[in-house]
Amino acid sequence: MKVVSKKIAFKNSLVLQSGKSLAGFELMTETYGELNQEKTNAVLVCHAFSGNHHAAGIKEGEKKPGWWDELIGDGKTIDTKSYFVVSLNNIGGCHGSSGPISISPESGQLFGATFPEISVSDWVETQKLLADHFGIKCWEMVAGGSLGGMQALQWTISYPERIKKAAIIAASSKISTQNIALNEVAREMIKKDESFHNGDYLAKGELPSKGLKAARMLGHITYLSESNMSKRFGRRLQDPQTKMDADINYEVENYLQYKGEQFAKTFDANSYILMTKAMDGFDPAKDFDHNLVECLKSTQAKLLIASFDSDWLFPKEYGLDMQMSAIRAGIDSTYIELDGDYGHDSFLFYSNQYSAALKNFLNSNE
Amino acid sequence: MKVVSKKIAFKNSLVLQSGKSLAGFELMTETYGELNQEKTNAVLVCHAFSGNHHAAGIKEGEKKPGWWDELIGDGKTIDTKSYFVVSLNNIGGCHGSSGPISISPESGQLFGATFPEISVSDWVETQKLLADHFGIKCWEMVAGGSLGGMQALQWTISYPERIKKAAIIAASSKISTQNIALNEVAREMIKKDESFHNGDYLAKGELPSKGLKAARMLGHITYLSESNMSKRFGRRLQDPQTKMDADINYEVENYLQYKGEQFAKTFDANSYILMTKAMDGFDPAKDFDHNLVECLKSTQAKLLIASFDSDWLFPKEYGLDMQMSAIRAGIDSTYIELDGDYGHDSFLFYSNQYSAALKNFLNSNE
Repeated sequence: MKVVSKKIAFKNSLVLQSGKSLAGFELMTETYGELNQEKTNAVLVCHAFSGNHHAAGIKEGEKKPGWWDELIGDGKTIDTKSYFVVSLNNIGGCHGSSGPISISPESGQLFGATFPEISVSDWVETQKLLADHFGIKCWEMVAGGSLGGMQALQWTISYPERIKKAAIIAASSKISTQNIALNEVAREMIKKDESFHNGDYLAKGELPSKGLKAARMLGHITYLSESNMSKRFGRRLQDPQTKMDADINYEVENYLQYKGEQFAKTFDANSYILMTKAMDGFDPAKDFDHNLVECLKSTQAKLLIASFDSDWLFPKEYGLDMQMSAIRAGIDSTYIELDGDYGHDSFLFYSNQYSAALKNFLNSNE
Repeated sequence: MKVVSKKIAFKNSLVLQSGKSLAGFELMTETYGELNQEKTNAVLVCHAFSGNHHAAGIKEGEKKPGWWDELIGDGKTIDTKSYFVVSLNNIGGCHGSSGPISISPESGQLFGATFPEISVSDWVETQKLLADHFGIKCWEMVAGGSLGGMQALQWTISYPERIKKAAIIAASSKISTQNIALNEVAREMIKKDESFHNGDYLAKGELPSKGLKAARMLGHITYLSESNMSKRFGRRLQDPQTKMDADINYEVENYLQYKGEQFAKTFDANSYILMTKAMDGFDPAKDFDHNLVECLKSTQAKLLIASFDSDWLFPKEYGLDMQMSAIRAGIDSTYIELDGDYGHDSFLFYSNQYSAALKNFLNSNE
């Protein structure tokens, strides 16, 4: 599958949930498959925290496929022979859409730390404008894992008439106190890096790579399951020849050091902060007196809510809570707990069970 | 209860497990109760990672009691009317015993980063010399939670004839891959603080407080349970008047910021690294072809192994694993899973159930 990324510009001002606004914005996108004449076969996939628009296929000159390549493609779970799949980098991100590393059209300077606070609702708003751009009146499905699943849920609430199905995977209707706490530790590490300069590091020609690396090391632990780490690394000692640091004893330490360093080379620190704040703040029931049942009553989409047994960051209780609320709201919703070897990250990987659940949901008709 | 801390000097050289040695060392100690004439009523309590010798009572001019004050004292679980309780700061620590912030008798300089690597076995060795100092031939009980529980376990292996009972609480015979990974993230944060200077910060007149603070924020999350954090803080927003930092939104963020800052004022960064490395390395079965059953066969002490239901850092599987090994080794061992509201930290707090289990164990006679 040939992959072409395309940047799409939106000229009108976008008022954000915070009250601030962007004087226009750009979205970096990829699409897979063909939009049919009636424009009724469109699927939106929403990326998780550190994901981007490159969801499927392999780009020219690269080796690594897109983050959901195991599930999107010709003959795959989300079959590009039948569906037109739209993927985008969310605003506030750092992979081509308007964000801290892009130029503010107003000031002509890098946004940096001045990029406004963003929310999951803001992302849905930009995705709605993207749907308008393609002439898509109603998504056949909006799907995503983790923070991507939150966007799928928000779609059913923000634009009930423009989404038929929402696949909400390894997600939650609001994150837990512990997750907020973990995000705060990550932000603390980044912000206290002496190269952070209150977010103005690019203007100073520096990068808070140490903070970003440590934040990712922590993140990585939370994305994997205890059992997966035990199986992969156990307590095996690291070969001294390939140690990233002289003080390292165990393989798992070396692995995290490596993963952290790689990530710090490709991700922007201000984006990290914006994305985690958006995750912390997501809580659609807040405007319904904290009652998710009331919040869901106006939705029209069919829901598929999926959790993974080994996910300790977004455990199944979150999925079950959404499902119980959906049932009480009287909307069409299915819950499934899936086996997953990779903890929270399981949503990224194919399994027969997972694929069957998602495929049957997508292809189902009332 | 009047509390007097006393430093005891040991003049002989101590060869450590690493092969390095200390030319003598000092232990900061506290004792509670009276040693009987036969010296048969002695209980050793071993502190956890960030604990110290101050286990019970309130020191003059202080408000906070010792870390196990709820369980040690006149008429309490470990009753100082009947028992002579010995508590000490472990070497490598930073509360009065020989460690990175003390002066090397050889160089006449601060140890700093040159303080040698230490192990749980090394601590038991120093505690054995402390027993000799008091003329205690056999402890009635050695008890501790978390890293303290590991010391209790090591005592049964290192000196089977000198310990009658071991209370191994919220502990493990070796920590998991995930725990090593979390420790490595904490070390990373400390070592990459620009004031760390490869551990020579004291000589430079600086402190890596930012790294230490972030490490403790992470540690704190792992010590508490998800449900405890949810109950205490939920998703409540922080009062803007009392925000530690302008970017804080939630109470839990403020709480962690505060706890982290307080800790960074009282703990030494090199000690943090030494202690976590000792924890990572603890694995007494390693010398028995990784067979804990074989490892335990020569022990003579009675064991009480206790886990807490809300502890996700040292979950009950670790306790059960030790208990199964003890049973297969044919030694006298009891396992109990206790209710605990505070996650891993539950071992610090009194409950009827916990107290009864520990008291009955201590007072039991064959």
